[in-house]
Amino acid sequence: MADRDPIEHLISLLSRIPGLGRRSARRAALRMLMRPQEAMLPLAQALEAAARAVRPCESCGNLDAQSPCGICRDPRRDRHLVCVVEGVADLWALERAHAHQGLYHVLGGVLSPLAGVGPEDLSISPLLARIAAEGVEEVILALPATVDGTATAHYVTDRLKPAEVAVTRLAQGVPMGGALDVLDEGTLAAALRSRRPA
Amino acid sequence: MADRDPIEHLISLLSRIPGLGRRSARRAALRMLMRPQEAMLPLAQALEAAARAVRPCESCGNLDAQSPCGICRDPRRDRHLVCVVEGVADLWALERAHAHQGLYHVLGGVLSPLAGVGPEDLSISPLLARIAAEGVEEVILALPATVDGTATAHYVTDRLKPAEVAVTRLAQGVPMGGALDVLDEGTLAAALRSRRPA
Ligand SMILES: [Zn+2]
Ligand SMILES: [Zn+2]
Repeated sequence: MADRDPIEHLISLLSRIPGLGRRSARRAALRMLMRPQEAMLPLAQALEAAARAVRPCESCGNLDAQSPCGICRDPRRDRHLVCVVEGVADLWALERAHAHQGLYHVLGGVLSPLAGVGPEDLSISPLLARIAAEGVEEVILALPATVDGTATAHYVTDRLKPAEVAVTRLAQGVPMGGALDVLDEGTLAAALRSRRPA
Repeated sequence: MADRDPIEHLISLLSRIPGLGRRSARRAALRMLMRPQEAMLPLAQALEAAARAVRPCESCGNLDAQSPCGICRDPRRDRHLVCVVEGVADLWALERAHAHQGLYHVLGGVLSPLAGVGPEDLSISPLLARIAAEGVEEVILALPATVDGTATAHYVTDRLKPAEVAVTRLAQGVPMGGALDVLDEGTLAAALRSRRPA
């Protein structure tokens, strides 16, 4: 093994963490190496445990240590109300805002001709199946206010027509072109409260 | 185990990494959870391997997977020239600058009456022992240009007087009040080249 191998290898993996550059990764490694028992082994164990336990929820697509996920299993949630999100980051953002009392459905993306994402890449058929099987009464489209997100909302609305379910979307408070998961919690809660027919 | 426990635990440990806030930790966790095999298990293994292997060098105090460290074992280094640094971060910064061909000695801090750091907390006796045992001819004091760093340089210079070794310090290019490990490599190299008697 070369001289500084384990340290250099650690720095190089740390620098791949989104938000940490090479310089920050080096400092983080050094700080952790000064107290390996407290700073390194617990993180190693947490990474392993999460990698082993966490999987997508078979029902909604959320990431959780159990499937169906904690939200889908929660008897206090309104099962007639399903909020459709692009991805898990947006689901977590809405949860942090305590803005939604129903269930979720993770679409797994938005339609994007440029990125080659078509309807078959999104979790739309499973959504239709859930609506039919679970007595869903309202679907809230909480998609990003981008061109692709808006086009996706229109497309999903069309696909949901035969299901005879109310389809609403986030309205007030979502800035144009903005991603959901960077919004403050009040903005998210307001947008959800003032949702309107799609 | 509670609903989102492994994920929340991971986020909370990631948010303790210097440079990552809570929001960045959450995003990093989510991105890693989407590809656990590629992003999480290798990092877990690297953390464990580094925590197990890395220790302070018994000779100079550098952190390395072997002791004596790779620098102390390197036959191409000039063993008559020892550069004294406050900590390992500064040693690594000088190594990145390829500015020093000799060995190092990590002092483990600087004198600080406010922080309660006295001479007995610094690795000065081991430095004197090294000078006596290893035929050191010059000690370069590469300490921070702060009040505490300058006082420490004076103190170490006094302690080294009986050893009859040349004592120099970094001069040109180190800005007042600046930490060494944030300086660019050219500045570090210039400061080392233009070192002068302490
Ligand atoms: Zn679920
Ligand atoms: Zn060493």
